[in-house]
Amino acid sequence: MTMAIWVIIACGALSIVYGVWAIQSVMAADAGNQRMQEIAGAIQEGAQAYLTRQYTTIGIVGIVIFVIVAWLLSIPVAIGFAIGAILSGLAGFIGMLVSVRANVRTTQASSQSLAAGLAIAFRSGAVTGLLVAGLALLGVAIYFLILTSVMGLSLEDRTIVNALVALGFGASLISIFARLGGGIFTKGADVGGDLVGKVEAGIPEDDPRNPATIADNVGDNVGDCAGMAADLFETYAVTVVATMVLASIFFAGSAVLGASMLYPLAIGAACVVTSIIGTFFVRLGSNQSIMGALYKGFIGTGILSAIVLYPITSYFFGMDTVLTTSRGLSFTGMDLFLCGIAGLVVTALIIFITEYYTGITYRPVKSIANASVTGHGTNVIQGLAVSMEATALPAIVIIAGIIVTYSLAGLFGIAIAVTTMLALAGVVVALDAFGPVTDNAGGIAEMADLPEDVRKTTDALDAVGNTTKAVTKGYAIGSAGLGALVLFAAYTEDLNYFIGNPAEFPYFEGVVLDFSLSNPYVVVGLFFGGLLPYLFGSMGMMAVGRAGGAIVEEVRRQFREKPGIMEGTERPDYGAAVDLLTRAAIKEMVIPSMLPVLSPLFVFFVVDWIAGKSAAFSALGAMLLGVIVTGLFVAISMTAGGGAWDNAKKYIEDGHHGGKGSEAHKAAVTGDTVGDPYKDTAGPAVNPMIKITNIVALLLLAVLAH
Amino acid sequence: MTMAIWVIIACGALSIVYGVWAIQSVMAADAGNQRMQEIAGAIQEGAQAYLTRQYTTIGIVGIVIFVIVAWLLSIPVAIGFAIGAILSGLAGFIGMLVSVRANVRTTQASSQSLAAGLAIAFRSGAVTGLLVAGLALLGVAIYFLILTSVMGLSLEDRTIVNALVALGFGASLISIFARLGGGIFTKGADVGGDLVGKVEAGIPEDDPRNPATIADNVGDNVGDCAGMAADLFETYAVTVVATMVLASIFFAGSAVLGASMLYPLAIGAACVVTSIIGTFFVRLGSNQSIMGALYKGFIGTGILSAIVLYPITSYFFGMDTVLTTSRGLSFTGMDLFLCGIAGLVVTALIIFITEYYTGITYRPVKSIANASVTGHGTNVIQGLAVSMEATALPAIVIIAGIIVTYSLAGLFGIAIAVTTMLALAGVVVALDAFGPVTDNAGGIAEMADLPEDVRKTTDALDAVGNTTKAVTKGYAIGSAGLGALVLFAAYTEDLNYFIGNPAEFPYFEGVVLDFSLSNPYVVVGLFFGGLLPYLFGSMGMMAVGRAGGAIVEEVRRQFREKPGIMEGTERPDYGAAVDLLTRAAIKEMVIPSMLPVLSPLFVFFVVDWIAGKSAAFSALGAMLLGVIVTGLFVAISMTAGGGAWDNAKKYIEDGHHGGKGSEAHKAAVTGDTVGDPYKDTAGPAVNPMIKITNIVALLLLAVLAH
Repeated sequence: MTMAIWVIIACGALSIVYGVWAIQSVMAADAGNQRMQEIAGAIQEGAQAYLTRQYTTIGIVGIVIFVIVAWLLSIPVAIGFAIGAILSGLAGFIGMLVSVRANVRTTQASSQSLAAGLAIAFRSGAVTGLLVAGLALLGVAIYFLILTSVMGLSLEDRTIVNALVALGFGASLISIFARLGGGIFTKGADVGGDLVGKVEAGIPEDDPRNPATIADNVGDNVGDCAGMAADLFETYAVTVVATMVLASIFFAGSAVLGASMLYPLAIGAACVVTSIIGTFFVRLGSNQSIMGALYKGFIGTGILSAIVLYPITSYFFGMDTVLTTSRGLSFTGMDLFLCGIAGLVVTALIIFITEYYTGITYRPVKSIANASVTGHGTNVIQGLAVSMEATALPAIVIIAGIIVTYSLAGLFGIAIAVTTMLALAGVVVALDAFGPVTDNAGGIAEMADLPEDVRKTTDALDAVGNTTKAVTKGYAIGSAGLGALVLFAAYTEDLNYFIGNPAEFPYFEGVVLDFSLSNPYVVVGLFFGGLLPYLFGSMGMMAVGRAGGAIVEEVRRQFREKPGIMEGTERPDYGAAVDLLTRAAIKEMVIPSMLPVLSPLFVFFVVDWIAGKSAAFSALGAMLLGVIVTGLFVAISMTAGGGAWDNAKKYIEDGHHGGKGSEAHKAAVTGDTVGDPYKDTAGPAVNPMIKITNIVALLLLAVLAH
Repeated sequence: MTMAIWVIIACGALSIVYGVWAIQSVMAADAGNQRMQEIAGAIQEGAQAYLTRQYTTIGIVGIVIFVIVAWLLSIPVAIGFAIGAILSGLAGFIGMLVSVRANVRTTQASSQSLAAGLAIAFRSGAVTGLLVAGLALLGVAIYFLILTSVMGLSLEDRTIVNALVALGFGASLISIFARLGGGIFTKGADVGGDLVGKVEAGIPEDDPRNPATIADNVGDNVGDCAGMAADLFETYAVTVVATMVLASIFFAGSAVLGASMLYPLAIGAACVVTSIIGTFFVRLGSNQSIMGALYKGFIGTGILSAIVLYPITSYFFGMDTVLTTSRGLSFTGMDLFLCGIAGLVVTALIIFITEYYTGITYRPVKSIANASVTGHGTNVIQGLAVSMEATALPAIVIIAGIIVTYSLAGLFGIAIAVTTMLALAGVVVALDAFGPVTDNAGGIAEMADLPEDVRKTTDALDAVGNTTKAVTKGYAIGSAGLGALVLFAAYTEDLNYFIGNPAEFPYFEGVVLDFSLSNPYVVVGLFFGGLLPYLFGSMGMMAVGRAGGAIVEEVRRQFREKPGIMEGTERPDYGAAVDLLTRAAIKEMVIPSMLPVLSPLFVFFVVDWIAGKSAAFSALGAMLLGVIVTGLFVAISMTAGGGAWDNAKKYIEDGHHGGKGSEAHKAAVTGDTVGDPYKDTAGPAVNPMIKITNIVALLLLAVLAH
């Protein structure tokens, strides 16, 4: 097994090699003319300034939590927390650094050909994608190696579990701050900028006279790129960790304990390699279909991963060997292999379903465009209806995934399916990070006054980017839906372990677990968990409203005080808008982020006080499922609905229903504005929120046991 | 106990006496001038035509189900179904007949004074309210009397339980059809009429030149009045029945079995009397506060009910007697009394919270009005954020209600709390049915060209109507949240009973119940249940979109073919719009209504096929809770959000942010349009949907046991 972990680490390291190569290859491309570089420079400066401020703030919170964790648990656990936090931040930061440089190069390449623009944009996205997967894998694998080999802890030592869970917590904490902060920044700029620019001043989107335009482009990078990177880093790390924790419980004392704990890491390692290979499949075919080109990369990675999963499973367990868990369930290596395949199939289905609901060529987006003809209200009604409908099929896919994988190999089977699903994070994040680069590329083309056909090329890339962004969010929340069972299982198994050893863990003496739905405390937990995504979503949307309102005031002030801006003789103060949003986003992200951190503690201690420990553990456990039951629907409806609204606008701008400037277009702009905080602030932040709630519950158990 | 049931029936009959008296008193009022009566006549004709068509369609479905139930179970059970369906329809029909006659009289009375207008509108609402409570009580009580006394069934005979559950099913079926059909009709007219009238033709709301204007007024009556009546009839009947079923299980073989089954009926009977008394407390104070006047009636009823609950509990059980259920739980009559009080407190809190979120004088509505200044998009964003936030406090109240009442008297305590909550249905529905009357009154004033100050009076009444409508919906869904536990308990207790007697019920042999959250089939059930309100909501909203679109086409056609309409020389064909909507609503209501009927069967048989009976019963049970966990949030957010949007528009029309015709007003009209299907179609229909899912599951058990 020692060799296996070194191979895993080597595969993880390969992602960094790929990253370095890809960064050089992007940077070697032509960065365009003076004016373009100037604009890109302003975006870079703003993004870097924002992220530095954001990470400084998170750093302070992080240090406080580090000390608390070290004090309540132990130093190795606290170090796990720090590793998760730092690597997650790093993946986002590097990804942002690359994408703010790739944007202008994509613009320049788009002036040559669609294929060239696509190549640069996708490659820069792939840097972020592979760093996310690679760093998450490396963090978990290396710290696991250090804990077991260097520190010599036995595989069954609780410190390992606690340290890995803390690593997940570190990643989650960064993730929720980054998602919310980035989301508020980007949508505050977008909503505010559009309102005052398009609606009041009557200038087009991305017009350089709009003082909020640079902030808007900065936002794409700090929200969609750095925010998504942190989010998927977290999802990846938490899932792998939870699967390892389950393995440590199910195979405690068994000969395959080591193999079962390394198996999820090995799946991740293999998929880093297949993702790297997959990136080279992305090439524009003769039909010029951008989505088709991206799918080639995704499908290639998926097929290669399916193939490579077989020898890996065979190596760790053998295909026909019967494995028996400590709960008495038996399954074979073949069953686990099939669970992995099921994870890949679920990923593919969720991606196709999301594309259907957000793609510009299908019924849902066209129905919203159609409803725009009769006005703002009907556009929004149809958009909301589509957003709600879009939850049904993904939920059914997740339900089918649960049934199939559980039938094959119980809870461990579900865990392996989610792990395999997330092992594709590299290529999926690549698709997502592609989005902000193309969005920026279009903005730069507009601001630098490049010829019409450049903008046309970047617009085509951007429309696909809207879909891929929605797709990634669907994938992130879908995996969370399936992963919730794994996290809940980790919670119950942990709890069972503590209750089973009351001599060692005196706090748990006399606790009787009852997770039955006929226990009212379970229902209380479900309702309380259920309200969190609603309250959290509301806070996120109101924060965007406030930030957007502040931008409106700021832009009005600049127009008033510098009348030359509108005539093009005076330069707007882009920096002031960026600064304002930075302050607003940092301030607004803190309270909602604390909601999922404090809620588990609140529920546990209040119910404990009213009805005792047993009821408190039941309510807390049920809360973990409650938050995913409503969270899944809130998040999918928001991200899919937002994507559909955005593309309905694009569909009209393509010349349907009267095209740009028509009444239908105005209605579609309203829908797009509504969709903005839906899809880029509140919706995606629900995903880390769900994970934090779960992780905090696991850590609470560890602290109570300590 | 025989005397008790006769007293209960007498109290129920009192509601009919009150109804007859109140109808006469309303009809005796002045019906206004020729023109007003003409308009009111058109509304009456349309409403009657629509309801006749709707009930004919439902009748056909009902006969089919009657035959199926008679064949699968027995004739007495099928008769229970018919009683529930017919009485529910009757309450709605009579309520509608009264309110379409009260509307014009309210207009006329408003030309004298606010107090006179309020008196007529409230009294006609009270007819519907008391008929709902009275007929539901009478239906359950008389059929219970017939089953036990005339047919001589023993209290422990399953036929009684099945017949009562079927009565609930009959009520639910009418309710979902009436809610959806009425909701689609009214909002199709409202959305379509506003779009083509206000936006395209530039004529005010309720302008007689708009061919959709009569349909809009018809819609208020068939949706808000008949639809709400059927909904609360159902909630009332289902809750009382579920409480009686629980009593029959918990006190089987006990001396208090009869008392415990009659106790919920007695609470209902007492509250019919207190509600009648409460209606006389509604009187405009010197401060001219309409809401204050209505609150006087509600608070008066609440206090009287709390007082009268004490002697009733004492009569049935004695306050200090210890009651012990078949599950071994002990509590006193005093505990049950306190549970009833808790139910009253929960009702009051939910009403006040809903008023806060939808009332014109508080932060949420003002924040939406404020956001309208920056445009359509920000209005909708803020409205959505408010709608989501509005779910948190009601959920916490429900959680607290569960914890308190369960601590006092277990599941039976929760059931008694919900029963008491619903016992107030009479006065609450009175507040709601007041809404459409005042809405119509305003429309008639506008169309009959009455002086400005009449319209001002009716507008003031109407603004309060918006809040009371939202309040009633919050109450209906809140009671469903609490009631879900009761229904779920009825399901599990029924199931336990069947499993415990495998000799009698061979189908249940070998079934092992596992409702633990660690059972993946429970999670599958939660997710599947969770998706239903989303899918259902989406269907409802899309149906409104289609119906509204059809109205737009129809009105455009009339304007085109009869150019004299706009000049006032030609009369629009109001009937054509009513006919078109009637057809559309009847057609659109069927498929969504079947969703909750068929879903439990689908889940049960599919999971049974995959994983066997035990898993199927777990998944089905979990689905019942899943549908309430997301349904609660979907329904509260939609109904509160819609009310807030509507009043934000009214707030601007009162002269804030530029008043009528300003850009802010246009944005607020968009929000109001979005809120329409939210608050009047999709949101409220979620309530009967939840109940149907539960009732169908209970009936499925009965059929499987048969």
